[in-house]
Amino acid sequence: MKISEIIDILEQYAPTILADEGDRPKVGLQMGNRHKECTGVVTCLDATLDVLKKAVENGCNMVVSHHPMIYYPLQKIDEDEVNGEAIAYAFRNDITIYSAHTNFDKCEVGTNASLVKMLDGKVVDTFECCFVAEVEPIAVGNLAKKVASALSDKSVKVIGDVDREVSKIAVCSGGGGGAFSYLNYANRNADVYISGDMPHHMYLEALGRDFPVIEFSHYASEIMAEDVFKSIIGDKVKVIKANQPCPFRTLEEI
Amino acid sequence: MKISEIIDILEQYAPTILADEGDRPKVGLQMGNRHKECTGVVTCLDATLDVLKKAVENGCNMVVSHHPMIYYPLQKIDEDEVNGEAIAYAFRNDITIYSAHTNFDKCEVGTNASLVKMLDGKVVDTFECCFVAEVEPIAVGNLAKKVASALSDKSVKVIGDVDREVSKIAVCSGGGGGAFSYLNYANRNADVYISGDMPHHMYLEALGRDFPVIEFSHYASEIMAEDVFKSIIGDKVKVIKANQPCPFRTLEEI
Amino acid sequence: MKISEIIDILEQYAPTILADEGDRPKVGLQMGNRHKECTGVVTCLDATLDVLKKAVENGCNMVVSHHPMIYYPLQKIDEDEVNGEAIAYAFRNDITIYSAHTNFDKCEVGTNASLVKMLDGKVVDTFECCFVAEVEPIAVGNLAKKVASALSDKSVKVIGDVDREVSKIAVCSGGGGGAFSYLNYANRNADVYISGDMPHHMYLEALGRDFPVIEFSHYASEIMAEDVFKSIIGDKVKVIKANQPCPFRTLEEI
Amino acid sequence: MKISEIIDILEQYAPTILADEGDRPKVGLQMGNRHKECTGVVTCLDATLDVLKKAVENGCNMVVSHHPMIYYPLQKIDEDEVNGEAIAYAFRNDITIYSAHTNFDKCEVGTNASLVKMLDGKVVDTFECCFVAEVEPIAVGNLAKKVASALSDKSVKVIGDVDREVSKIAVCSGGGGGAFSYLNYANRNADVYISGDMPHHMYLEALGRDFPVIEFSHYASEIMAEDVFKSIIGDKVKVIKANQPCPFRTLEEI
Amino acid sequence: MKISEIIDILEQYAPTILADEGDRPKVGLQMGNRHKECTGVVTCLDATLDVLKKAVENGCNMVVSHHPMIYYPLQKIDEDEVNGEAIAYAFRNDITIYSAHTNFDKCEVGTNASLVKMLDGKVVDTFECCFVAEVEPIAVGNLAKKVASALSDKSVKVIGDVDREVSKIAVCSGGGGGAFSYLNYANRNADVYISGDMPHHMYLEALGRDFPVIEFSHYASEIMAEDVFKSIIGDKVKVIKANQPCPFRTLEEI
Amino acid sequence: MKISEIIDILEQYAPTILADEGDRPKVGLQMGNRHKECTGVVTCLDATLDVLKKAVENGCNMVVSHHPMIYYPLQKIDEDEVNGEAIAYAFRNDITIYSAHTNFDKCEVGTNASLVKMLDGKVVDTFECCFVAEVEPIAVGNLAKKVASALSDKSVKVIGDVDREVSKIAVCSGGGGGAFSYLNYANRNADVYISGDMPHHMYLEALGRDFPVIEFSHYASEIMAEDVFKSIIGDKVKVIKANQPCPFRTLEEI
Repeated sequence: MKISEIIDILEQYAPTILADEGDRPKVGLQMGNRHKECTGVVTCLDATLDVLKKAVENGCNMVVSHHPMIYYPLQKIDEDEVNGEAIAYAFRNDITIYSAHTNFDKCEVGTNASLVKMLDGKVVDTFECCFVAEVEPIAVGNLAKKVASALSDKSVKVIGDVDREVSKIAVCSGGGGGAFSYLNYANRNADVYISGDMPHHMYLEALGRDFPVIEFSHYASEIMAEDVFKSIIGDKVKVIKANQPCPFRTLEEI
Repeated sequence: MKISEIIDILEQYAPTILADEGDRPKVGLQMGNRHKECTGVVTCLDATLDVLKKAVENGCNMVVSHHPMIYYPLQKIDEDEVNGEAIAYAFRNDITIYSAHTNFDKCEVGTNASLVKMLDGKVVDTFECCFVAEVEPIAVGNLAKKVASALSDKSVKVIGDVDREVSKIAVCSGGGGGAFSYLNYANRNADVYISGDMPHHMYLEALGRDFPVIEFSHYASEIMAEDVFKSIIGDKVKVIKANQPCPFRTLEEI
Repeated sequence: MKISEIIDILEQYAPTILADEGDRPKVGLQMGNRHKECTGVVTCLDATLDVLKKAVENGCNMVVSHHPMIYYPLQKIDEDEVNGEAIAYAFRNDITIYSAHTNFDKCEVGTNASLVKMLDGKVVDTFECCFVAEVEPIAVGNLAKKVASALSDKSVKVIGDVDREVSKIAVCSGGGGGAFSYLNYANRNADVYISGDMPHHMYLEALGRDFPVIEFSHYASEIMAEDVFKSIIGDKVKVIKANQPCPFRTLEEI
Repeated sequence: MKISEIIDILEQYAPTILADEGDRPKVGLQMGNRHKECTGVVTCLDATLDVLKKAVENGCNMVVSHHPMIYYPLQKIDEDEVNGEAIAYAFRNDITIYSAHTNFDKCEVGTNASLVKMLDGKVVDTFECCFVAEVEPIAVGNLAKKVASALSDKSVKVIGDVDREVSKIAVCSGGGGGAFSYLNYANRNADVYISGDMPHHMYLEALGRDFPVIEFSHYASEIMAEDVFKSIIGDKVKVIKANQPCPFRTLEEI
Repeated sequence: MKISEIIDILEQYAPTILADEGDRPKVGLQMGNRHKECTGVVTCLDATLDVLKKAVENGCNMVVSHHPMIYYPLQKIDEDEVNGEAIAYAFRNDITIYSAHTNFDKCEVGTNASLVKMLDGKVVDTFECCFVAEVEPIAVGNLAKKVASALSDKSVKVIGDVDREVSKIAVCSGGGGGAFSYLNYANRNADVYISGDMPHHMYLEALGRDFPVIEFSHYASEIMAEDVFKSIIGDKVKVIKANQPCPFRTLEEI
Repeated sequence: MKISEIIDILEQYAPTILADEGDRPKVGLQMGNRHKECTGVVTCLDATLDVLKKAVENGCNMVVSHHPMIYYPLQKIDEDEVNGEAIAYAFRNDITIYSAHTNFDKCEVGTNASLVKMLDGKVVDTFECCFVAEVEPIAVGNLAKKVASALSDKSVKVIGDVDREVSKIAVCSGGGGGAFSYLNYANRNADVYISGDMPHHMYLEALGRDFPVIEFSHYASEIMAEDVFKSIIGDKVKVIKANQPCPFRTLEEI
């Protein structure tokens, strides 16, 4: 099967038309050659050098990542830099990299849909990359523990009243913690907001509104993409999950 | 003593000329009246409504905060919004709010200088709000535990090799984790970078460079401002620390 | 009756959707608390400190102004500054300020509609904040005297031929004298343009086109807002007009 | 004498280097041919069609104006438009137009220096196009009458306390009434601000600051340019003043 | 016949609504007076001084050019500059200049339609100023010779494989060689791209794509506008072609 | 010898500090790995796929080009596109690409200095990438022939008077024909301007000024870079010239 055929299958699930406007040029084939025969796929969150090496070790010439590898436009490709080293390795080893980013966040089998499912919720509304879902009434503190357990995320934090019972949750996978518009939307449409990469001033805004927030790690909220990509294309081609580790360790893990 | 005199003393330590250009209009008297007699000061990280109430309860009509209260320019002041509620309360209770932000980050008694001291270091270089210091050789993991202990911060994370011995640290209080230029500077001039509010893609950049990073919480790295402000003006006027709590709770604190 | 109910009534007459795009964030509740019981309203052109004081003296906790009080976004609220002093006074005295600006200019009972009525005209066309109306044929000089008399405005000026008979007038309340697009529209659709705040180069443009212009004072053309606001809400709540004086004096009034 | 030689003389008095940056491309030879023999000059405030006709009637082939004729960059020159008609007339009649604008405002014999002199003041400071001068103590109302009389300006207005005695005046010829930075500078450095083209919201700012302002007409404050230009070049070439009339009439002049 | 009537006829063929958005203000009457009686027209590519002189010598008071005379907005009209000298000459000699630019490129009798016709093609598609047409199969080298011969253009260049047979051509009159979007469109929809003003990096792009390009001179590809304008209005008024020469000479023409 | 050492030698001749500001990020190591041992260098104008293949065929792992390979920042590297195919080939074959662009244009042994030498001139002034030189008096037509002969450029064009004798020439290698500021500088400081990539409206500007211009091909004016790079590093490492052909053919070369 050709790489372009694998892409066609992925895009049936996550059409590129769903991607945010600014994300559009980075979504799709990021690097490489769509016409080659696919010898196997490694699925991952980020196409890091370690992931590319795993592909080579396993005889796979395609990597499907959630995050685009070239995030900022390139003016040079110096192997002394992180991106340059990975790009060089990819070309030298004939690996083609494909990314499904905000189109995957929003699609029916994507990260947000997965999160809602892991929390036993039912989607009732969406706003860009933010999904609102209904769950059985639960205290915020217990919901935080459920999130931590479902995502195996030891770094979960809670902002606000842990005892308040909530039944409508707003979820945004990845780094939706910095988007004011998402917090606003969540506040108007849900009882609690669950997202990652949240800076200090957002904690204050949530506290000031008396609106509970649960923060997970960006990584933990999207690593299931490895599984989802595998489930989509696993019956067409050899697929290996990168089993990419969390990029940080908490105090107790040191 | 007049409020303006308190301000003069604070600005001897943290001259407003040190503030970043974009920060300039927000640094200094943020709200209120510099000509009133000061009846007492509450020092804090953020001039939240809770802090303002503590000022009133303690007969203080001045709040000295590290973060500017009006962070984004205002077009209306609606009491239904977080900022509006606090501004209204401040005016109704005759509280004047003064902020020392990036000028305080950089000054000799400021947040970064304090962090270096808490880690038993000696400043050898600075770059905007980032300080480089020399410390006794220590493994990154142990340094992370030292940071956690010094700041009473249970949320400390480590990115990269915990066993590597380091002796030159780059520290940026608050949310320096999102500034690529700081990571670059730290990477070129130190063995490890220590800062807060770090989004996922910075973890990857640090891992890709094999450059260790320790992430603390924005709050924990700056809450000592309460003490520093108190030490500067405590002998001139009644000063009460807000003892502002951390805005989030970790899993074990729920 | 709650302040929010007074707002609802005003917005039935001047829906915020009518406001210019750039004006949108400043129109509506400008400052204060919509949930309080309304103890009385002072209507005015500008919510100056004098107006706020009148509200307090008369036991009114709401001010309805035509011009938004926060015209330029605020980065600090220093009581040493004009805006800061008024904002502080408003909050200390629990006054809520509501503004209907360009939405009121354009609505059926608004400033432009009022001007046309005062000049015995009949609206036949509109363009943004500019209204075209038909009047009985009249010489430009006499029309200027009629404007001066209707608005009690001693500062009225005439540009161009005073003897020319006109029957189609274009009117723009406030400071429409600086908008080239309004002059153009008036020139194509009317015999004379009537507006305020006109800079020198607009006089030349009008003279060059041989298109007569009558300039009134911004104040005189909008002070009737005090009356209109009163007529709208006067039967629901105590309403006092500010009777705000003209901000300038002509030579003969010194 | 060649037109270029007349220009050289004018620029000894008002060097183009003094002009504001944005004004630079419009200052100097605005239209025509610097190499022709000068047959006479008409001096004026604005190079309107009437002024150009006066030049032709008097055998003059040069017009020296204070305001640049091409104020907004041109993309077409249609004789149906005000500017186009004048440009066409100028070329058809071989008239060269020269403008000294902000460089003339600021120079030693320019509009601001002239205004100070007419008010019996002595310049003590300058800021861009704003001059501060000391005068004999005088009440604001009387100063306004003196301005009106010196400039023959019936439209003079006063904002604020007419009885306050002032001795330090800030003057800005033309349309300095709309520049917030000038009001600020005047407020910090003088007792009263005198300028033209002042919109309504500046009246409020001045009233709020309790800072007196006198508003003259833009025209009246700069028409003396006709005389000054004449005095500079009158002994080298035939010079006729346009005696350009005020573009508006007040109520009593109708 | 009035000049405005000539304009009406031209705009029936090349409606200004067809012009590119940025081109809109420069298309139409560029300079002069539409109300005069037309004494004759000179048609040309560029309204240079030589062309204007030819108009005068032949008793014509109108010039119809393809390129707008005022290409960059004017801030002064100095006769020492190229544009200023021509504008002055035009007004002194009562010449009105009319331009049909991108509206003429795209219209049914315009430059692109003419080019297609000269190459015996049939238009099948259009994209902005680029026309795709079908021709009898021909080798690229022979097509280049045909272009050179049809346009009498000795400077024609070929990029890529001269022997490849092509039957679908994309043509863009004038300077379409610098527009990446045109090359892209041509590459997707035709076998060869034919245009002018092509910089070096476009040659490389074409070679890299193995997509043949033929470059003609901007002048040669549009000089037929002289004829087309004449054919449109020649029966209404005296029309003389400028017979404007090519602005450059090739080596063999020196 | 390491690639980084070759770079050091090149930058002694063409320091990157000389590069234009916008060109800075693209100058220097464009792609690859500076730490490898250099097995040979291919010098060229453009690092096209053909040039990269020549490097491989000749056992060279470094390409030194005048033009940067990544001219527009990249957001993806698709092998279906011209740039993507070349980048992939470079990495797969371990080729490192180094570019010296505007720094090389301006340096003492660079393209402009070379052009002046080929025309037997002596540099007397410089302005950005434009050099002024004195030559023996020569007619413009003959100078054009000399340029054509020196550069073996059959596409040379002449604009203006071929018989005029000139002795001061302004030269700008590459595509300086589109830069208005260069034409201005040349016109004020030299008798003739010599550059490439000249669009039609520049011809008109030159003709209107009666200022002669000679246009060469961008390629022909810079291909000598192959030789210069070789002469700089040829004694340190194996160096092969790409002998890159001209990207276009003239009519007589078809």
